[in-house]
Amino acid sequence: MSQVFAITMGDAAGIGPEIIAKAYAMAPELMHGCFVVGDRATLLQATRRLDCPTALPVALIENAQEVLILPPRCLPVLHIQELEGLVPYGQINAKSGRLAARCVVWAAQAALRGEIAGLITAPIHKQALAQAGSPFSGFAGHTELLQAEAARFLNISAADLPVRMMLANDELRVVLVSIHVALKQAIDSLNVPGVFKTIQIAHESLSRLLKRAPHIAVAGLNPHAGEGGQFGLEEINILLPAIAAARAQGIWVSEPIAPDTVFMRARSSPVRKGEFDVVIAMYHDQGLIPVKYLGVEKGFNMTLGLPLLRTSPDHGTAFDIAGLGQADPSSLIEAVRMARQYAPS
Amino acid sequence: MSQVFAITMGDAAGIGPEIIAKAYAMAPELMHGCFVVGDRATLLQATRRLDCPTALPVALIENAQEVLILPPRCLPVLHIQELEGLVPYGQINAKSGRLAARCVVWAAQAALRGEIAGLITAPIHKQALAQAGSPFSGFAGHTELLQAEAARFLNISAADLPVRMMLANDELRVVLVSIHVALKQAIDSLNVPGVFKTIQIAHESLSRLLKRAPHIAVAGLNPHAGEGGQFGLEEINILLPAIAAARAQGIWVSEPIAPDTVFMRARSSPVRKGEFDVVIAMYHDQGLIPVKYLGVEKGFNMTLGLPLLRTSPDHGTAFDIAGLGQADPSSLIEAVRMARQYAPS
Repeated sequence: MSQVFAITMGDAAGIGPEIIAKAYAMAPELMHGCFVVGDRATLLQATRRLDCPTALPVALIENAQEVLILPPRCLPVLHIQELEGLVPYGQINAKSGRLAARCVVWAAQAALRGEIAGLITAPIHKQALAQAGSPFSGFAGHTELLQAEAARFLNISAADLPVRMMLANDELRVVLVSIHVALKQAIDSLNVPGVFKTIQIAHESLSRLLKRAPHIAVAGLNPHAGEGGQFGLEEINILLPAIAAARAQGIWVSEPIAPDTVFMRARSSPVRKGEFDVVIAMYHDQGLIPVKYLGVEKGFNMTLGLPLLRTSPDHGTAFDIAGLGQADPSSLIEAVRMARQYAPS
Repeated sequence: MSQVFAITMGDAAGIGPEIIAKAYAMAPELMHGCFVVGDRATLLQATRRLDCPTALPVALIENAQEVLILPPRCLPVLHIQELEGLVPYGQINAKSGRLAARCVVWAAQAALRGEIAGLITAPIHKQALAQAGSPFSGFAGHTELLQAEAARFLNISAADLPVRMMLANDELRVVLVSIHVALKQAIDSLNVPGVFKTIQIAHESLSRLLKRAPHIAVAGLNPHAGEGGQFGLEEINILLPAIAAARAQGIWVSEPIAPDTVFMRARSSPVRKGEFDVVIAMYHDQGLIPVKYLGVEKGFNMTLGLPLLRTSPDHGTAFDIAGLGQADPSSLIEAVRMARQYAPS
């Protein structure tokens, strides 16, 4: 597999094109070997709006491998589909939703066929995707689009391809049992197979990424991990059986650990290596609060459980600042850096 | 009110006496003007076990004011009650539970009478307290003991004296709506008066402590603070009415903010002042995960809502390492430092 990476442009009305152009301008060595899947005119506009002493030329390419023979300090674009004119910034637009989805599908297929080592996705807008029309409107977001492509490639149903989100930065990795549901619903839907599958996906993915078996911590659901059943029974009835099942497969996994200390213990700092390679978080904010605490620009997301490597920045389209030149490319740069680090060589 | 502070010894079988002795040895200037309410023999043993080049003498005092005429580099003890021999380390013991409770009650009464500026409580063991006999067994912990003494002093019922926990470090302050209950129960018992009262207590306490009206952030309960009701309705049905009621009293308080970004935004770092003075957290771990993330030794607790100043380290009795010389006094030292900083002068 060649070490080229595709960056999907994201929603043209959001900050995606801007942060991509900034990343190429600010980190040319890191970005060399990456190309953008997107719309030529939109990306050209983004490069022209850069506040840079030297211009960043846009180089059209026809296939992924071409990027390797390009010089650095240009922005290679694999042009997917012409928009009918540029879309306005900061507005939900079916056309830009549709183009964003097409770019993701193109990159997923290229990754599944082994033509690229992985993909980095700039943000899409969920409502623009919902307006994008068939076959894209039915997908909630990136994860579902990628899951469907991978399932089609493997000739299985998407339901047989469970995925989990990993959020990480230099200090901490967390994998979430559930994501965008009400907290009460996250608790009500917590069950042994779901926790077990999360541990298993984290184990398989991190074994491949780290090239050794990871040490996995399981966060409790309740204060003090339930304190022996005093503050909730989910640790006893759900987490311990899931942990036992994972251990029976030879997976290194902790007991349920008090949520308020497990992230601190797992954290690696410049002066101290963390005790665990990853923490399984029982709900969205349990994992995201510590990952984001030190600054959102340092984090990135990775989708685990798919037969392809995908990372993304941990922010959205930011319609409120799109086109203003204020968007920060740090998280995108981190997502590219991590895709390179985690790619099989 | 005199600027003397009482430190209650905590459970003699835990690390309380050890961290107190270490604090006096390591931070003599900070500790000058503080005395320990406890048992002479237990504290003498703790000082003798110190790994220090010079001995730390124990000085018995009869009343709080005496501490001001003592030289630094000694450990002043106001002796409350002789234990019948020292208690063994690391074991639940009714006698040490009883003594620990008596020390807390003594210090609470001294603070309520204005004889001391505040109290710093070393950890007690809940099960030892439960075995301590009448009148202490009925109290769940420090907070309940202090609440009862204050209510008696004010001649009101304890139910009319709602208190809240504040956890803080140099970077972040959080005040918790609920503490030691199952997460599901914390959600089920969330209501408008409880959230409103938490905001109000935070406002009153921090106005006094900071000598200006604080900027209060309210964390949402659900991912993305519910995203307009998509992921849960508690923000709309509970948090917004509580916020409206607080604003009607002139309190500066935010809308419900996404839990995964509010703590990051409130955090003050050496290079950036936080956007808020305090965050109202909807449940135990929502607040404790970010406060503890950077290291438990930097944090401290404060009880808000009482007519006395009380801080404490944010760890427990640590029976597993009691007597081994390994206990870290940093959080106790921070609790003393903060009591001094927050005390009315």
